[in-house]
Amino acid sequence: MRSIITAELEIVALGTGDTGMSKHIAVAVKAINEQGIKYQLTPMGTVLEAGCIDDIFCAVKTAHEALVRSGVKRVVTHLTIDDRRDSPKGMEGKIESVKTKL
Amino acid sequence: MRSIITAELEIVALGTGDTGMSKHIAVAVKAINEQGIKYQLTPMGTVLEAGCIDDIFCAVKTAHEALVRSGVKRVVTHLTIDDRRDSPKGMEGKIESVKTKL
Amino acid sequence: MRSIITAELEIVALGTGDTGMSKHIAVAVKAINEQGIKYQLTPMGTVLEAGCIDDIFCAVKTAHEALVRSGVKRVVTHLTIDDRRDSPKGMEGKIESVKTKL
Amino acid sequence: MRSIITAELEIVALGTGDTGMSKHIAVAVKAINEQGIKYQLTPMGTVLEAGCIDDIFCAVKTAHEALVRSGVKRVVTHLTIDDRRDSPKGMEGKIESVKTKL
Repeated sequence: MRSIITAELEIVALGTGDTGMSKHIAVAVKAINEQGIKYQLTPMGTVLEAGCIDDIFCAVKTAHEALVRSGVKRVVTHLTIDDRRDSPKGMEGKIESVKTKL
Repeated sequence: MRSIITAELEIVALGTGDTGMSKHIAVAVKAINEQGIKYQLTPMGTVLEAGCIDDIFCAVKTAHEALVRSGVKRVVTHLTIDDRRDSPKGMEGKIESVKTKL
Repeated sequence: MRSIITAELEIVALGTGDTGMSKHIAVAVKAINEQGIKYQLTPMGTVLEAGCIDDIFCAVKTAHEALVRSGVKRVVTHLTIDDRRDSPKGMEGKIESVKTKL
Repeated sequence: MRSIITAELEIVALGTGDTGMSKHIAVAVKAINEQGIKYQLTPMGTVLEAGCIDDIFCAVKTAHEALVRSGVKRVVTHLTIDDRRDSPKGMEGKIESVKTKL
């Protein structure tokens, strides 16, 4: 069976004096985009989808370190990984499953 | 200034024997919907938007307890609250801010 | 059966220019302490224990709002609630259960 | 400056029929222990400390995959990474910083 892992990444930049985070999140999202991984912006984070967990960790590391390289002195990253092996679903499939039950 | 709080809720049901979560998430989402709070499904959770933090807590409690009442013996709920006071943005505004910087 | 809910709270203050968070976390912890709820500091957050979910939400709200009142313009709060109904365990009991299996 | 990264890992096993998680958490903790990384059990997760982010990801991947190999069909992993570059502190230092301000 094809493996699909969905994940969510939330990154905050501390100690910058910026109340707004969009500049920092854009740095992270550009880094993710360059990895060629499937992603979707949400109001609270970035959802990722990949065929293996290494691609998720690689994208998250790249995003996290892009913030550090941009000069942010403290980066706090939250990652949630959902890895279902018996009947994996991608981003759209997961939402569809809930909607059919509402 | 009008206050806007955005939040994300992720609920999992443990000990049910179900690998799928959509049935349980649908129970939570129906409870949220009955609260009349603005929400949006994502592949990894449910984003909430309200004018005060009490409405967020009320929706989360209602969703959490709906799962308990449905017979789930262990409910693990993750909640992220983003409360910006100087220039609050709603769900769409937050995504728009990032997109303009990509 | 007596109900026990364990939870973890992680709060960050954005837009302050402070890389250090301990000053802000101390504000949150003092607020929690005044609620009379059982808690324990960890390197990544504050673990809470209460007999009902309302006490958890009340402590979290009090901590979150203490930061806002202290002048922080953006507060991001992460809360995890673990609510097990068939055989609830408190903070020490949960760690003990894992240690006996190591 | 020596780099120190602290992190917290929370893993849940879905679809097992077990309400208790300690058996599964013990599998994860044993895997972490074999990595030789510094860690501390808390009632809500496992705190990790390492000199570089790769060691954190490696420990988390090893723990996550140990659960999959043990037969769990859906593993949901939450990871929080705190990476402070101007004045990094380890597990004990972070708690100490808060306690001196209480």
